[in-house]
Amino acid sequence: MKNLKFINNKLYILDQRLLPNEEKWIEITSKEQAYNAIHTLMVRGAPAIGVFAGFAMAVFANENNLYELKKYLDSARPTAVNLSWATQRIVTASQNGKNLIDEARSIQEEDIEMCRKISTHGLSLLKDGDGILTHCNAGELAASKYGTGLGPLILGQEKGYSFRVFSDETRPLLQGARLTSYELEKAGIDVTLICDNMASLVMKKGLIDAVLVGCDRIAANGDTANKIGTSALAVLAKYYDIPFYVLGPYSTVDFDCRNGDDIVIEERNGDEIKEMYFKNPTALKETKCFNPSFDVTDHSLITAIITDKGIVYPPFEKNLKETIK
Amino acid sequence: MKNLKFINNKLYILDQRLLPNEEKWIEITSKEQAYNAIHTLMVRGAPAIGVFAGFAMAVFANENNLYELKKYLDSARPTAVNLSWATQRIVTASQNGKNLIDEARSIQEEDIEMCRKISTHGLSLLKDGDGILTHCNAGELAASKYGTGLGPLILGQEKGYSFRVFSDETRPLLQGARLTSYELEKAGIDVTLICDNMASLVMKKGLIDAVLVGCDRIAANGDTANKIGTSALAVLAKYYDIPFYVLGPYSTVDFDCRNGDDIVIEERNGDEIKEMYFKNPTALKETKCFNPSFDVTDHSLITAIITDKGIVYPPFEKNLKETIK
Repeated sequence: MKNLKFINNKLYILDQRLLPNEEKWIEITSKEQAYNAIHTLMVRGAPAIGVFAGFAMAVFANENNLYELKKYLDSARPTAVNLSWATQRIVTASQNGKNLIDEARSIQEEDIEMCRKISTHGLSLLKDGDGILTHCNAGELAASKYGTGLGPLILGQEKGYSFRVFSDETRPLLQGARLTSYELEKAGIDVTLICDNMASLVMKKGLIDAVLVGCDRIAANGDTANKIGTSALAVLAKYYDIPFYVLGPYSTVDFDCRNGDDIVIEERNGDEIKEMYFKNPTALKETKCFNPSFDVTDHSLITAIITDKGIVYPPFEKNLKETIK
Repeated sequence: MKNLKFINNKLYILDQRLLPNEEKWIEITSKEQAYNAIHTLMVRGAPAIGVFAGFAMAVFANENNLYELKKYLDSARPTAVNLSWATQRIVTASQNGKNLIDEARSIQEEDIEMCRKISTHGLSLLKDGDGILTHCNAGELAASKYGTGLGPLILGQEKGYSFRVFSDETRPLLQGARLTSYELEKAGIDVTLICDNMASLVMKKGLIDAVLVGCDRIAANGDTANKIGTSALAVLAKYYDIPFYVLGPYSTVDFDCRNGDDIVIEERNGDEIKEMYFKNPTALKETKCFNPSFDVTDHSLITAIITDKGIVYPPFEKNLKETIK
C-alpha cells in the first residue's frame, strides 16, 4: 500500500501533509495518535480513512471499550461516512466473535477489489497513448490500491499502457500538484502539471482524449459533487467534444438526493486562498474570499459514471437504478 | 496616478512586485534604474510601461544621447511594442524641437483619455448592482487611470454605481489576487477573491452578469489572446449564457493576424507553477510543468470587443475593420 502499512501487528501511515517534499512514515501507537492522523488529514480520501480506521480499531481494541473507541475515532471527522461505516464493521465483527485484524484486512481487500473493478471498467474506455486530464486526487493515496479517478491509469500502467496525463494543480489545497502529480510520477506514468486555468488550452491543442475525475456524492439523476473546479472541466470537455468520466464506488450514489440542488456545498475559510502554502499573503487582509470546497457537475455534461458495478450511461436517472439489480 | 508620480521634475514609481504586502514608492534617479524598473516588472502593463518610458526618456535626456537612451530602455523588454512606441515619440519630439516633459505628459494624457473612452463604452453595457467576473489585471496599475478591463468598474464607482466584483486569483503569477483585488479594494469597490477554478460555480449561482477581461492581441477575425485562463471563462460564460466582453485599445487589433492560429503563445519556465510564491515546492523536482502565459479565446465566444473607438459586435471580421473609418 502507498499510504498504510500493517507489519508485525504494527500500524504505520504515510503523513500525506508533508508530500511531495518528505515521505515520512509514522507508527501509530495510540488511539489518540489514530484520532489525530484522521483529524489532521495525515490520512485522507474516503476509502483510505475507512481502511485506516478498521486497522486502528482492531489494533487498539484490547485496551479500550470498543464502542467508546468507535465513537472517539468517528468524531475525528464527523462527516466522513466511510469512517463510521468501517468502525461499525469492527464493532459488529467483535459482537460476532470474529478476529478483528482479519476483519480490518477484509475491509482493505474489499476496497482493493472495488477499486480494481472501477479501474478495469474505466480502462476499457481508454486507448494506449491517450491523453488524460485529471483534477484533485482520487488515486492510491486516497484508497488502498489503484484508487478511483486515477485507477484506470495505474492499472493501465501495470498492463503496459502508456498514457500522457495532465494533472490540474487543484487550488486552493493543491492536491493535484502535491498528491496526484507525485503519485503518478512515482508510478512511472508520464505526467505534466498545469494550473487549473490551463485546461482549456490543453484541450484546444488536442492533447486530451478523456477527462477522469473522482466523486464525493452522486445524486439520483447523475448530478455529481466533486472537488471545486470539476464542473468547469465538464463544461470545457463538452465544448471541445471530449468524453468526461466520473469514477467512484457505486455506494457514492445517494438515491435520497434527487439532484444537485439537494447537495450542500461546504465552504472553507477564505484565508486558505490567500495565505495557506504561500510565502506572503496574496491579497489584502480585508479582501473577502469565497472558498467553496466542491461544485456540482450537471448530469448532462457527464459521458458516463464508472462504478464497481459497471459503466453507467445516460439516462442516469433510469440507468443508475438499474445497475443495482 | 496609482503607479507613477512626476513631482518637481522627479519621477517615482510604485514597486508593483511588492503588492499587496508593501506600498513602496521608488525615486528613479538614473537611466539604469529606469531600465531595471521595466526589466524586473516593478512597472508592468503595456500602457503603464509606455507612460513611464516617456517620462524616463524626458528626465534623463540631458545626460544622454537620446537615440542611445531609447535603444537602451527598449532593450529592457524587447517584445513590449508600447515601450519602443513611447520612446520613439520622445525622440521625434526632440527632433521637432518640442519640450520633452510636455511630450511625456501628452503620452500620459492620451492614455487616460483612451482608457476613459473604453471605460465609458464598457459602462454603457452594465447596470448598477451587476455582478462582474474579471481575470488577471487590466486596471489602473497597468495603465494611467481607469485601465481597460477594469475601467468600467472604476469609472462606474466614480459615478456612484455599486458593482459586486469577483476577481480570479489568476495562477501562476497571481495578478488577479495581488493586483486586481488590491486595487479594487483600495478603490472601495466590493471585491471577492476566488480561485480560477471557482468561476463555474459562481456563474452557476447566478452571481455574474458579465465577464470583463483585457486583451494582449486581437486578430482580424476577433480571436483574442489574453492571460492564460481567459478562454475557459469565455466557454463557461457561453454555457451559462453570460455576456463576455473583451476591453482594450483599438491599437490591440492586429490586422496582420488573420486569426488566433497566427498568434504565438509564449511559454514560461514551469518552476513558476511549482515554486514561485510558495513556502515549499508543490510538486517533485522531476515533475514536468506546462506553463503557457496566454491563451486564445475564439471570436465565437465573445459578445463584444470594447475599444476606445467604440463597441464592436460580431461579425468581428467585418465590424473591426469598419470601426476604423
